[in-house]
Amino acid sequence: MRNILIIGAGRSASSLIKYLLDKSTDENLHIIVADVNLDSAKSKINQHKNATAIALDIFKEGERKSAIEKADIVVSMLPAHMHLEVAKDCLFFGKNMVTASYVSKEMQELDVAVKDKGLTFLNEIGVDPGVDHMSAMQIIDRIRDNGAKMLLFESFTGGLVAPECDDNLWNYKFTWNPRNVVVSGQGGAAKFIQENKYKYIPYQKLFRRTEFLNIDGYGKFEAYANRDSLKYRSVYGLDEIPTLYRGTIRRVGFSRAWNIFVQLGMTDDSYIMEDSENMNYREFINSFLAYHPTDSVELKLRHYLKIDQDDNVWAKLLELNLFDKNKIVGIKDATPAQILQKILMDSWTLKEDDKDMIVMQHKFGYECKGEKKQIESQLVVIGDDQTYTAMAKTVGLPVAIATLKILNNEIKTTGVIIPINKDVYQPILKELENYGVIFTEKEVPFLGYNQENIS
Amino acid sequence: MRNILIIGAGRSASSLIKYLLDKSTDENLHIIVADVNLDSAKSKINQHKNATAIALDIFKEGERKSAIEKADIVVSMLPAHMHLEVAKDCLFFGKNMVTASYVSKEMQELDVAVKDKGLTFLNEIGVDPGVDHMSAMQIIDRIRDNGAKMLLFESFTGGLVAPECDDNLWNYKFTWNPRNVVVSGQGGAAKFIQENKYKYIPYQKLFRRTEFLNIDGYGKFEAYANRDSLKYRSVYGLDEIPTLYRGTIRRVGFSRAWNIFVQLGMTDDSYIMEDSENMNYREFINSFLAYHPTDSVELKLRHYLKIDQDDNVWAKLLELNLFDKNKIVGIKDATPAQILQKILMDSWTLKEDDKDMIVMQHKFGYECKGEKKQIESQLVVIGDDQTYTAMAKTVGLPVAIATLKILNNEIKTTGVIIPINKDVYQPILKELENYGVIFTEKEVPFLGYNQENIS
Repeated sequence: MRNILIIGAGRSASSLIKYLLDKSTDENLHIIVADVNLDSAKSKINQHKNATAIALDIFKEGERKSAIEKADIVVSMLPAHMHLEVAKDCLFFGKNMVTASYVSKEMQELDVAVKDKGLTFLNEIGVDPGVDHMSAMQIIDRIRDNGAKMLLFESFTGGLVAPECDDNLWNYKFTWNPRNVVVSGQGGAAKFIQENKYKYIPYQKLFRRTEFLNIDGYGKFEAYANRDSLKYRSVYGLDEIPTLYRGTIRRVGFSRAWNIFVQLGMTDDSYIMEDSENMNYREFINSFLAYHPTDSVELKLRHYLKIDQDDNVWAKLLELNLFDKNKIVGIKDATPAQILQKILMDSWTLKEDDKDMIVMQHKFGYECKGEKKQIESQLVVIGDDQTYTAMAKTVGLPVAIATLKILNNEIKTTGVIIPINKDVYQPILKELENYGVIFTEKEVPFLGYNQENIS
Repeated sequence: MRNILIIGAGRSASSLIKYLLDKSTDENLHIIVADVNLDSAKSKINQHKNATAIALDIFKEGERKSAIEKADIVVSMLPAHMHLEVAKDCLFFGKNMVTASYVSKEMQELDVAVKDKGLTFLNEIGVDPGVDHMSAMQIIDRIRDNGAKMLLFESFTGGLVAPECDDNLWNYKFTWNPRNVVVSGQGGAAKFIQENKYKYIPYQKLFRRTEFLNIDGYGKFEAYANRDSLKYRSVYGLDEIPTLYRGTIRRVGFSRAWNIFVQLGMTDDSYIMEDSENMNYREFINSFLAYHPTDSVELKLRHYLKIDQDDNVWAKLLELNLFDKNKIVGIKDATPAQILQKILMDSWTLKEDDKDMIVMQHKFGYECKGEKKQIESQLVVIGDDQTYTAMAKTVGLPVAIATLKILNNEIKTTGVIIPINKDVYQPILKELENYGVIFTEKEVPFLGYNQENIS
């Protein structure tokens, strides 16, 4: 029996645990699901004979060390800032480790020690980061192996509601942590490069600088720029590339409407509003508008943000009951972002039968023998239900597959790594196809930003 | 001889030192001007017989303690974050202390110990904070002493160029630290209250929510909201006041033009721009605009921010040479705010004969015996030259006057205090009048935001 310890039995762990349990008899696995909440761990294993649920508070050193010592490999599905203690124990006890999170500075600093012990700490193996790394690097490596030169890389990812469950005017529901959606784009300008020109978009303009994209079979989408696209130049070995842009996908029109919240200041998470608990939704919106004894909140807002009488963005606001006097915030000492999140959760929470969707698209422009070419690659994954969501599948399956391949010594690269090398991404992408995580690829005309080479 | 130690001989110390030197023989004073730069200290005392210039690095504990031990009172004109070490030594050696800075949390924590030793640490006794506190409290106290109830307090302050030297389209020059002007308004929403409604303005809208004001003899101005007006409710004892607003004064039209920089993201001080050293001004502005191979920077900007062909805001941009290819940034690893500051300093630096101006206006609305009334109070101070600037006078004179009055035991309140009590502000305001710092006051019709009491 080989023991796989999975720490953290949250929503994203369902597909991960199912994959490993399904393989457990053939592969001789015993799965220990550890969570601070024992019931949560228990519900995930559903009394499977090859699994054990345990209560584990990772801040209790003894408990944590004891669990890790008994494992053959450790998967941390904890929030990103909690990985480090687990990683240090894995290093001490000589255990391989897998996470879906970005490599923190502290995690990176373990690299030499991890290599010295011949261990593999694989990170960024979920979705954005993860599946995006692997699918992009597969094509970038192929292009470069053919002696071609990369000219453009654009990559877009979005977590959305599946089209058949898309029944609101925003074409959006929360399929993941709502808080991250509300504060998305904050904390610094978006940075990218187009035709060798560096471009910077401040938060206050981020949602008005969207790009459109088409996903075959799913229609038109839009994307706003991610925080720092430039760092991917070194990650992907594209230091000389003239165009590199990464973005977050939404349905068309979402960003223009979202910009209303940004402009009003409703997404601000940095201060507490006075008497937020007793405030109603209408008072909330009015607190961002100038005082007037008689003018309506509606007219003040339309005038302030220059919203025409027939602009359909207005219906989106009405759908959220933003002007409702009878809806009470009811949260003590709340920030604007917390209140907005509450208002949005009234409308954007998935219904019991709703399914989510992960959409990803990459564009690769390159020059091969003097000819400019472009490849587009896309992925659409629809959730099965509210347990095996598209998000749980695209995060959990690559984690699960990678874990088993490390355990089986099929992935041998040591150190603190991310899945950008062929020997890591190739077997994982191949296996993912068996689970419906399939990229389709096509050649399109080269669509750089400066096709005529005007300088 | 009574020794007054002044630490920090920067621009704001000139009027302070002159006042004390002028009184030194009559008052039996010896002034020690200490600065990390000895020449700077020397130039300020100009070989006056009652003064000594010394070199002092306040981070050298021995030097600092020795200088403070010998003084009868200590004035710290250091940057705000450097006061604390001086304050601790003053406490230890039992010396009174004066600063023009906001009371920091750490300074406030010394209050009990300062009181126990019978000492006075007077802070916020420059201009905004300082003269504004005193002039406002004088009228607020008088209104309340007459049994009236405060309904409205609005206070506006600005440091500007004097009208006779106002020769650019922005009607603005840097009269103080340019960096503070560039990042003004950042770091959180502006908060205030109008007719009992809390109002919040995010940075991205701050410069589009200005209020107009008239200064008798000087025409029309505008003001944008300061960060946190609400905290003045407790400071001034106005906890129940329905309207409280504080703002920063600019000439009309400045804020609408400044908003262009805000929207573009040019005031951002949080990240470093790629290759900033070799960037020209035109490339700087283009980095905030979408890529296009042929469209001009000018047209892209006009379209992006919807600037009409005949909008005079455009001439303001041209005046700054913003579109100039031949002007090079020349600063390594610069943030957008640092680059913008450099561009503005090309145009907004005071010329040798230019004078600055401090403008202040308070509005006091109150109800007395069922009648609503309003008082407006205003101050305009014009600088004599580039040494005895309006800023140096309005900061330095109240500091100097307060220092002498504490030394002469005319101000006796102990603890870590600010000048909001009658026994402190009254003698200082009276003496300031001898130096041309004179508020004029008039009654006007009550101008609340809701005169009809519509609820």
